[in-house]
Amino acid sequence: MIRAGVVGATGYAGAELVRLLSGHPGAQVAAVGSRSSAGKPLSEIYPAYYRLCDKVCGPEDEVIAKSDVVFAALPSGLSQELAAKCREAGKAFVDMGADFRLKREEDYQTWYKGKFVFPDLHEEAVYGLPELFRGKIRGGKLVANPGCYATAVPLALAPALEAGLASSEGIVADCASGVTGSGRKPTQNTHFAELNESMTAYKAGCHRHTPEMEQTLRAVTGKDVSLTFVPHLLPVSRGILATCYARLAPGATMEQVRAAYEARYGKEFFIRLLPEGRAADIKNVRLSNFCDISLHLDRRTGTLIAVSALDNMVKGAAGQAVQNMNLMFGLEETAGLTAMPPAF
Amino acid sequence: MIRAGVVGATGYAGAELVRLLSGHPGAQVAAVGSRSSAGKPLSEIYPAYYRLCDKVCGPEDEVIAKSDVVFAALPSGLSQELAAKCREAGKAFVDMGADFRLKREEDYQTWYKGKFVFPDLHEEAVYGLPELFRGKIRGGKLVANPGCYATAVPLALAPALEAGLASSEGIVADCASGVTGSGRKPTQNTHFAELNESMTAYKAGCHRHTPEMEQTLRAVTGKDVSLTFVPHLLPVSRGILATCYARLAPGATMEQVRAAYEARYGKEFFIRLLPEGRAADIKNVRLSNFCDISLHLDRRTGTLIAVSALDNMVKGAAGQAVQNMNLMFGLEETAGLTAMPPAF
Amino acid sequence: MIRAGVVGATGYAGAELVRLLSGHPGAQVAAVGSRSSAGKPLSEIYPAYYRLCDKVCGPEDEVIAKSDVVFAALPSGLSQELAAKCREAGKAFVDMGADFRLKREEDYQTWYKGKFVFPDLHEEAVYGLPELFRGKIRGGKLVANPGCYATAVPLALAPALEAGLASSEGIVADCASGVTGSGRKPTQNTHFAELNESMTAYKAGCHRHTPEMEQTLRAVTGKDVSLTFVPHLLPVSRGILATCYARLAPGATMEQVRAAYEARYGKEFFIRLLPEGRAADIKNVRLSNFCDISLHLDRRTGTLIAVSALDNMVKGAAGQAVQNMNLMFGLEETAGLTAMPPAF
Amino acid sequence: MIRAGVVGATGYAGAELVRLLSGHPGAQVAAVGSRSSAGKPLSEIYPAYYRLCDKVCGPEDEVIAKSDVVFAALPSGLSQELAAKCREAGKAFVDMGADFRLKREEDYQTWYKGKFVFPDLHEEAVYGLPELFRGKIRGGKLVANPGCYATAVPLALAPALEAGLASSEGIVADCASGVTGSGRKPTQNTHFAELNESMTAYKAGCHRHTPEMEQTLRAVTGKDVSLTFVPHLLPVSRGILATCYARLAPGATMEQVRAAYEARYGKEFFIRLLPEGRAADIKNVRLSNFCDISLHLDRRTGTLIAVSALDNMVKGAAGQAVQNMNLMFGLEETAGLTAMPPAF
Repeated sequence: MIRAGVVGATGYAGAELVRLLSGHPGAQVAAVGSRSSAGKPLSEIYPAYYRLCDKVCGPEDEVIAKSDVVFAALPSGLSQELAAKCREAGKAFVDMGADFRLKREEDYQTWYKGKFVFPDLHEEAVYGLPELFRGKIRGGKLVANPGCYATAVPLALAPALEAGLASSEGIVADCASGVTGSGRKPTQNTHFAELNESMTAYKAGCHRHTPEMEQTLRAVTGKDVSLTFVPHLLPVSRGILATCYARLAPGATMEQVRAAYEARYGKEFFIRLLPEGRAADIKNVRLSNFCDISLHLDRRTGTLIAVSALDNMVKGAAGQAVQNMNLMFGLEETAGLTAMPPAF
Repeated sequence: MIRAGVVGATGYAGAELVRLLSGHPGAQVAAVGSRSSAGKPLSEIYPAYYRLCDKVCGPEDEVIAKSDVVFAALPSGLSQELAAKCREAGKAFVDMGADFRLKREEDYQTWYKGKFVFPDLHEEAVYGLPELFRGKIRGGKLVANPGCYATAVPLALAPALEAGLASSEGIVADCASGVTGSGRKPTQNTHFAELNESMTAYKAGCHRHTPEMEQTLRAVTGKDVSLTFVPHLLPVSRGILATCYARLAPGATMEQVRAAYEARYGKEFFIRLLPEGRAADIKNVRLSNFCDISLHLDRRTGTLIAVSALDNMVKGAAGQAVQNMNLMFGLEETAGLTAMPPAF
Repeated sequence: MIRAGVVGATGYAGAELVRLLSGHPGAQVAAVGSRSSAGKPLSEIYPAYYRLCDKVCGPEDEVIAKSDVVFAALPSGLSQELAAKCREAGKAFVDMGADFRLKREEDYQTWYKGKFVFPDLHEEAVYGLPELFRGKIRGGKLVANPGCYATAVPLALAPALEAGLASSEGIVADCASGVTGSGRKPTQNTHFAELNESMTAYKAGCHRHTPEMEQTLRAVTGKDVSLTFVPHLLPVSRGILATCYARLAPGATMEQVRAAYEARYGKEFFIRLLPEGRAADIKNVRLSNFCDISLHLDRRTGTLIAVSALDNMVKGAAGQAVQNMNLMFGLEETAGLTAMPPAF
Repeated sequence: MIRAGVVGATGYAGAELVRLLSGHPGAQVAAVGSRSSAGKPLSEIYPAYYRLCDKVCGPEDEVIAKSDVVFAALPSGLSQELAAKCREAGKAFVDMGADFRLKREEDYQTWYKGKFVFPDLHEEAVYGLPELFRGKIRGGKLVANPGCYATAVPLALAPALEAGLASSEGIVADCASGVTGSGRKPTQNTHFAELNESMTAYKAGCHRHTPEMEQTLRAVTGKDVSLTFVPHLLPVSRGILATCYARLAPGATMEQVRAAYEARYGKEFFIRLLPEGRAADIKNVRLSNFCDISLHLDRRTGTLIAVSALDNMVKGAAGQAVQNMNLMFGLEETAGLTAMPPAF
């Protein structure tokens, strides 16, 4: 059994990771860490876990010592030092935060106002989007788990762009996320009475996942891709829906587009390309590691509309982290991630 | 007091109209009509109205006879004959359905599979979007009340396009609507357990409000405008959020854009152009006739992001119908529509 | 026009009061006060009010000076001094908090851990539940606005107990409230992701509204009434549903019970006794000052089940406060409170 | 592997059973049946199951033939004949409907207007509430799976009544259920726009689960128990919260009560007796087979308040059915039911 440690276990992503690992056939939660709730059992924070995970939150160093792999669910900027400690201790590391996602330090400086403290760690870090970069993740020791939107949008667009069937200019990624994406800390705009019956855009055109999406699509296509990304906050708990718009290339047909997606994703367990006539819905992937994708065409304007749906806490965070762990340790890639999404 | 009749009063738009008219200082509900609930008091369908509107649903002819103005909230295709009857009886008519919205019969045929039964009525019909076509509505006898999305999107885009500050090509209108937009009839996808925690696109690139939006923007700009429109269904009761993307014209600045919106809408009571830094939210316009608009810029791609929010049942249906009635009868345009939206 | 001032205007009850007063034909908001948001326009806190109530929050003394009547929406314990200031300034005062609700100081000490600072003010204070104590409120200068649960439960039970048709022992009041009842301040258990899809009891058997309910029922029946009260928190924004259980008196019939309710409430505008076969629903009273009541019988156990529904922010707070103001100033009791509840 | 067949697989309880069985280590879904959707893959009805359970719905006889155990999720009255067929074919049978729950035919006639078609089958049928009647279920061939409310209420009350610590008269069971309890068929009152922001009581004092609860408590205590039961419909998808009120017996203390619950449930995996100070919440048991119970005291009236929370689709239906299957076939009782409930 792989011993897994979770630093930042009391945040939503950390707690979800504990839930997923608890059902994993080849791994187990060895230790949980939290600064804010040190000394408290995790089930005091999350009563749903009562008697199922009553482990007490301890300090980071203890988590590292007890684990073969350390997952970090920390605010931006706090993972670099932890990654260094893990490397020193010879432990695998999966960062669920943003510290190791951007490969170009100037991007990190621009968008996160931070710098690369240990450049060699950044060199070593692998970007953990398995469906696009599986080969690099296998056997890796330091994996940067992608952002939630930065998983949904590139998965929706990659096959069309890679095959040259859609223009890499003028792309619009209009996304909506459930509220768990903004974390466990109560705020005014996530107070039930304020979010209920609400929908609004935020960080329109300036969200930090933008350069991450562009980096991924650049890696896939081999050329610069720019897109306009606007996220919205939804009154639901879980889920990201990404509605992506790209102009079809001259002469390209939807048959070709569909074939490109089937070629790319046909054997992927976690990507479900929906039959024509269906549309991806966040409801259908809840609590699962699936990413559903549906393809639509606006014939009048020649626009490809690719819609992806995933659970921001699973494929957008903890589930993908487990998928990455499976690849890092040579386990079955789907291990611990095969539970059916509930129908309602 | 203007005597108002509502045909199709048991549908959501009809019922909302009854609510708005009940607080109107210069009009009153004279009669309500419904085929499906003939002989029943409206409050039996809507217990919220118990003792407040217990009027019994009667036949269309009775509604016409008792009214100075007839509002029709009927499925597509059923309003033309009713409009003819109203003209014959000398009664003003506001159609909340789609029969008179499109001016070109070929568009109507393409999108609604119907034809213009009384061409002269279509000639006479005025498109009732007051902020853009107020002059034509004043004194009109037959008004086509716009579709909900077809109100939200043109209001968000008109000033920028009219002033030539944004490109009329490659526009994307990504919208989301509360479930009342799909009516009162229970269906599988609006069943609570299915819609709850869900979000999905529908009729991507082929929704019937598309030609209506383009018609409005063509009228405003004097040239063809094409856009890609994708609506989504939200797990909320009311509201439409329209996130519209248009490329800024070469050399255009956000200062110019903002100035154009202020010039267009500065004196409009029902349009609230939000200060910089705020984003339009459906929550803030619920149960009111306001349309909030916020403007954002994606500097990296030179894309204007104009977001509008309105209540699909009020500014997107019954409220705008009352606004049109006020104009038709020479009342204060805001009469009956000044209630503050609730804060929560 | 009566000039109304609202101290604590940025809380939910205060903000709702501003909304209701804005549509009042005989009163207007003269000033708003808030310590936490001093110097900010109210519409900065509540963007729904943008351009409709942009008044700036000022200090208490300024509110008193500008007003004929002062409404206080303050945490427990802060209203007594404010009431004294108002009396000194000759201004009417409506306390929406709990300071003046309990007539017996020992009850106040037991349940609120406070004391009566100005005993004569408590002597003077009138309990503002108009349907039961209208006569005392008329012309009053200091009114204690009832608690939300303490409005719903006594209204549901009073006629049966008063008429001796149900036992005053062994009563159970099982209630559920929307989240606005717990205020605007974000907390962990009102964070959207935690409250969504949740329902739980709180303060079971020990909520502060218990002695208030008993005091009211004692006043109505002339004898001691004890009840077991358990509130629950619901994932909805507004509304209280009170399901009250009382054993029918020997020989009492539902016909007698129904007759007693009709005698008591038949002429009350704000109480809607529902026809047999319907059940009170919080949805049907939202945003209105109505209290719907339905009566049911468990024949097998001889138990009367009286269910009341009201909007905790309106009949349970701000609406009832306006109703009290109307009585205090000799206005029509329903002034400003006649808007129909929305059907959806 | 036990081959399990599900008749009525397209209803909510049937679909949930398919989900649970898909993760069961010792059983698998061998066949699914549905009259309304015959010939369609289950995943066409529930797109969440796409590629995970694409089995095609077949006729009952085929389901019986392919299975070792048949689960029936059918409307009242349709299970008796199916049970007879299963007995004839030598297959185990778990009825998730109501046909075999009531042991006294007169009760069945009174509450369900039906009769016992095969009296010996009713003789043989075992009531499948494992925590109270485990011994009888082990090795059984025909199990009546309890109603959802009829699981929640007896589990909340049994230990106190069994130990004589609370009165068996004057009990009130006030319950609230998520909407999946009323099934998949869309109706007006479960239409999203009607149920959202709503709460109402239904079948107050006359719900069919009442005699079932009394039967269970009679079996546990050995004497007649009568209770008043009122269910409410909640705007959430899953969950039942049962708030039960019973007068403490003279001299009884909460320490004794708590001890009785610990003695009864201390070793039960699926019952979590919560620590003092916590309250049972439907959120914490979602998607799991747990039943959380919290105990509270109203000291003033000497009333025990026992609150239980369970997922109406799992412990209230499909999960308990699997638990019963495990007992019937001699598997580990918790097999397939150990997944942690999600924290959010």
